[in-house]
Amino acid sequence: MRKKLVVLAILLLCLGVSLFAQESLESLGFSLDVVWLFIGAILVFIMQAGFALVETGLTRAKNATNITMKNVMDFCFGAVVYWALGWGFMYGKDALGGLIGSDQFFFGEMAVNTDNAGVYMNWFFQVVFAATSATIVSGAMAERTQFKSYLIYTVFISAFIYPISGHWIWSGDGWLAKMGFHDFAGSTVVHSVGGWAALMGAAVLGPRLGKYVKGEDGKINVKAFPGHNIPYAALGVLLLFFGWFGFNGVSTLTSLGEGSIWSGANISRVCTTTTLAAAAGAIGALFCSWIWFKKPDCSMTLNGLLAGLVAITAPCAVVSPAAAVVIGCIAGFLVVFSVEFIDKVLKVDDPVGAVSVHLVCGIFGTIAVGIWANAEGDGVLGLLHGGGAGLLGTQLIGILAVGAWAALTSLILFTLIKLTVGLRVGAKEELMGLDISEHKSEAYTGFQIFTNM
Amino acid sequence: MRKKLVVLAILLLCLGVSLFAQESLESLGFSLDVVWLFIGAILVFIMQAGFALVETGLTRAKNATNITMKNVMDFCFGAVVYWALGWGFMYGKDALGGLIGSDQFFFGEMAVNTDNAGVYMNWFFQVVFAATSATIVSGAMAERTQFKSYLIYTVFISAFIYPISGHWIWSGDGWLAKMGFHDFAGSTVVHSVGGWAALMGAAVLGPRLGKYVKGEDGKINVKAFPGHNIPYAALGVLLLFFGWFGFNGVSTLTSLGEGSIWSGANISRVCTTTTLAAAAGAIGALFCSWIWFKKPDCSMTLNGLLAGLVAITAPCAVVSPAAAVVIGCIAGFLVVFSVEFIDKVLKVDDPVGAVSVHLVCGIFGTIAVGIWANAEGDGVLGLLHGGGAGLLGTQLIGILAVGAWAALTSLILFTLIKLTVGLRVGAKEELMGLDISEHKSEAYTGFQIFTNM
Amino acid sequence: MRKKLVVLAILLLCLGVSLFAQESLESLGFSLDVVWLFIGAILVFIMQAGFALVETGLTRAKNATNITMKNVMDFCFGAVVYWALGWGFMYGKDALGGLIGSDQFFFGEMAVNTDNAGVYMNWFFQVVFAATSATIVSGAMAERTQFKSYLIYTVFISAFIYPISGHWIWSGDGWLAKMGFHDFAGSTVVHSVGGWAALMGAAVLGPRLGKYVKGEDGKINVKAFPGHNIPYAALGVLLLFFGWFGFNGVSTLTSLGEGSIWSGANISRVCTTTTLAAAAGAIGALFCSWIWFKKPDCSMTLNGLLAGLVAITAPCAVVSPAAAVVIGCIAGFLVVFSVEFIDKVLKVDDPVGAVSVHLVCGIFGTIAVGIWANAEGDGVLGLLHGGGAGLLGTQLIGILAVGAWAALTSLILFTLIKLTVGLRVGAKEELMGLDISEHKSEAYTGFQIFTNM
Repeated sequence: MRKKLVVLAILLLCLGVSLFAQESLESLGFSLDVVWLFIGAILVFIMQAGFALVETGLTRAKNATNITMKNVMDFCFGAVVYWALGWGFMYGKDALGGLIGSDQFFFGEMAVNTDNAGVYMNWFFQVVFAATSATIVSGAMAERTQFKSYLIYTVFISAFIYPISGHWIWSGDGWLAKMGFHDFAGSTVVHSVGGWAALMGAAVLGPRLGKYVKGEDGKINVKAFPGHNIPYAALGVLLLFFGWFGFNGVSTLTSLGEGSIWSGANISRVCTTTTLAAAAGAIGALFCSWIWFKKPDCSMTLNGLLAGLVAITAPCAVVSPAAAVVIGCIAGFLVVFSVEFIDKVLKVDDPVGAVSVHLVCGIFGTIAVGIWANAEGDGVLGLLHGGGAGLLGTQLIGILAVGAWAALTSLILFTLIKLTVGLRVGAKEELMGLDISEHKSEAYTGFQIFTNM
Repeated sequence: MRKKLVVLAILLLCLGVSLFAQESLESLGFSLDVVWLFIGAILVFIMQAGFALVETGLTRAKNATNITMKNVMDFCFGAVVYWALGWGFMYGKDALGGLIGSDQFFFGEMAVNTDNAGVYMNWFFQVVFAATSATIVSGAMAERTQFKSYLIYTVFISAFIYPISGHWIWSGDGWLAKMGFHDFAGSTVVHSVGGWAALMGAAVLGPRLGKYVKGEDGKINVKAFPGHNIPYAALGVLLLFFGWFGFNGVSTLTSLGEGSIWSGANISRVCTTTTLAAAAGAIGALFCSWIWFKKPDCSMTLNGLLAGLVAITAPCAVVSPAAAVVIGCIAGFLVVFSVEFIDKVLKVDDPVGAVSVHLVCGIFGTIAVGIWANAEGDGVLGLLHGGGAGLLGTQLIGILAVGAWAALTSLILFTLIKLTVGLRVGAKEELMGLDISEHKSEAYTGFQIFTNM
Repeated sequence: MRKKLVVLAILLLCLGVSLFAQESLESLGFSLDVVWLFIGAILVFIMQAGFALVETGLTRAKNATNITMKNVMDFCFGAVVYWALGWGFMYGKDALGGLIGSDQFFFGEMAVNTDNAGVYMNWFFQVVFAATSATIVSGAMAERTQFKSYLIYTVFISAFIYPISGHWIWSGDGWLAKMGFHDFAGSTVVHSVGGWAALMGAAVLGPRLGKYVKGEDGKINVKAFPGHNIPYAALGVLLLFFGWFGFNGVSTLTSLGEGSIWSGANISRVCTTTTLAAAAGAIGALFCSWIWFKKPDCSMTLNGLLAGLVAITAPCAVVSPAAAVVIGCIAGFLVVFSVEFIDKVLKVDDPVGAVSVHLVCGIFGTIAVGIWANAEGDGVLGLLHGGGAGLLGTQLIGILAVGAWAALTSLILFTLIKLTVGLRVGAKEELMGLDISEHKSEAYTGFQIFTNM
């Protein structure tokens, strides 16, 4: 009898320890994923600094305060409105059959406690993506947009435009997600949406004064306004590259498990493809500009690196390293042609090439999924890996649907702003530079600068 | 009999595996927390770069080498003296009833081995906080302080002033900690201490030449010296924001567990409140400056963002997201009024607004705990959440005690330096700029700069 | 009977849960290490930005686009060729008795799946080290090297020179590793290799025009060309310091376990010694320059900080904090003397001091292991801790062998480039600046800059 009791006691001890270990394991896994999302969120956050530096470096010195301030404030307004509205529209309870989220505005009734820790952590990871989408626009509209109009725009994109198409794809209940549309880290969700708004904004706004001037021969001369600080632009691109490892790598959303593209075991693939596509993008744009313009052009090469990053964002989790090199290289070529096309043929004035980088390569990256995807286990297979044209078709539907949404809503938004508070500063203010005219302070006090350039 | 032996064997196997799993679980938890502290430490470290850029950007070009060098060297001297003395005073064995730590100087007898891994990791996380406190001062004393005097000061604050009041609050044995004083990540421990030293330093030092000049009408004209590089300042602020996620987020000290504000489950709250308060601070200061000065002022807005961060540092773990927005917004207003008050009324010359950001908002944030805290489980409840005035009273005691300590010791220190080696460079040296007069090298060789500004 | 069945059922449950927990524990440990390597890789990646800023800041404004672009492109080319060739030579299957790796080129047959996740993650961590080694060279050859020649060089070092000596030390099968050569994070593997290539490159290339000019008295005047942006250099150094925590800290390769220098429990020691050595290096160089040149020299001090970091890279895991202070301080002195010696006596023109920082202090750090190592458990003991001269001898053999390899191959490489496509831009191009002559774009459009300096 005593023996049996001893056996039973040991038995219960084992069971207790085992169950406790089991529970602790799950708790430890949760802790690790909190750390993982934390890493991702801060990395995507620092991309704001990258965007600020790229846009500042590639525009003129007389607008440097203005452009940095826009980049800081779109995050600040974006964070507050994404808490108030955006998160709810994107990840709130689904309504209208996958069209829109409908609760959790201002975090709703949700107490700040352990049960909701996961929700808060996800908000922290998502808010920085929303800000990225908004900040893309400032570059395309640089050097001529009123500061207050920019603030109005940024509130709307973070609260409304970005979250709703985001809901379609990333909420789980969205109609595009249910169709099988695949956009791992946001070539479409983030970059194309920002890119469409950038294109519409730049088009509604019109070009900078002196950009397209009719010569005596009746031809239109396209003037280039070189950026005022190339090292800023390069540092910005390196910070964006750095942050992009969080953007793509942490989009697994977990560091645990294996067997799925959305598991921890796939992080290594995402990091490898992201690195190679960015490198190939820069190399592609370098040689393209070298052959075409007879010089290894710096801003084209930097944009090529970003083009590779934007293009690999959707397919990073489902393609091979070799495919990543091809995708990046094509994006690098594409961005050079697109910058020239938009500047010289469409005559839309995009000072930093934001539309070419984020819209054109965002679309290309989304298509690339339909071609090079080879994630058989998850059923994401492209044209070249036995998936047929089905996925490619779905990707095109997603591109068109999100494009229609983002282009239309931002066109309406910018037109309304233009008709009410106005979108553009006056000619005198533009020539003087927005630092003095909008903020009454120079960016580089004490330096001799030629502002007539 | 054999059956019984088999049962017993399985039983012991289970027990062995269970116990091994248990031990490994704890070891895994320890590993995860090492990673967590590592992340925190490097994030707080990069704040040095943020401070360097903010202070450089908001001062004049002729002092840029000097100010960056001060920011680099206060970390270097700080690290060595915090190893030699500071850590011992702060976290050594308690002496004098909670007043001071008393061993582990130079890490004492402690071998560098596994048993002490936790201590070394904590040192690594704490040394960067000590450096933050020291580096705040350089901004307030910029453009006129001797380099060698600055080095002497920085040794004393890192070795002595900061660690001792830190011991009162963060060592566990400190008298303020025992009273229930709550300062999660250091609004008082780090920012107010640095802020008091900054105020005393700037006051003892006197204003920059030409700052307050009596006009012909007998009135004193307050001259503004605009900073020479706004993008530096903005990049610095974004790097500070980035690092602050480590400052606040990792101050849970663990990524494990739940149920307490000092547990891993609270990381998500800390990140959310930190983001929202910073954003609200920038928005608050933006509108405040826009209404008051009729322009959206860039340096005020950037300081508003920092003000929000400083203010949320104490309460970040115990308030709701909505309260964080309110706290940040108030801090944003506060910093604008404080900058004007200190500059125009007190006539203390603080070139970058360090006193307003770190001292004024550090005090406000510490008070905010007493008002908005709602962490019932941990017994940290403020005025608005049923805690009565008790916590608020304790917070005020802490503010006064730390204020008296930091203000008095730094006043004595700066006065002694002034009377011995001297605190200020000569008038000729100041006009020439400290880069040439102290370091014999310009910061921007080749650029045309007007140094008479 | 039923009781027995119940007992058996519980027993099997226990066993199942225990074994599952065990498996999950291992899987969780793997996940944590993926996160750990991810952190390390992105930190070492951002060192590219640090190098770019240091080299840009310490050279002249007319070459700023060129130098930043070289720093961006050596990573991009390096990543692609390290995928294609370098990784295979370094970590492929050993051939020729520890001399070279021989498979996994283009990742070989390796499928992108869970089984290979560890390999991809290691590639991601290693590729950034390869890029570091390559990028060191651009500083020493700055302001006069053709862009295309630089690209050719960078391909060869990343594909061939760096991986092969790396194989000797870090592959496990390498002949130096088997001898007991100890280089924890790469004082020799990364920094000396880059440093030798930098020395050979600068020597083959010759000095910048106007650097060494014979005066009327027949003596050679050594002209200093001050850098054009000290805050860039300081920010760069701080970013390098930040990234170095990944470089050294994550070179444990795991965050798990204890008892070995290659275990998670040793991370805290590595972080502590790295911090202290860097701080001591800056302090050493500061005082050295202050006494020698009668001024606290900024670029010397910044190089002193880097010297401390390079020197502690090999011994960071096996020395005490006090030894780290000594090592850092010596490196800080060393770098000042070395810069003067190379510049004034050897008359090799190294614009940023890369050879002194990376080669001289890389060698010193490798020797320091043989003197101060005290890791008894791992059998790594230096002269001062009872290890006799054996380890010191091995370290010297490694220094000589790697030195011979890196110096010889890079000498041949640069000579071949010089004889074929040419290494140097023309005199006219050099005086005009490489930004205009090589890239047809200024770095600072709109700013008044004196390019004749």
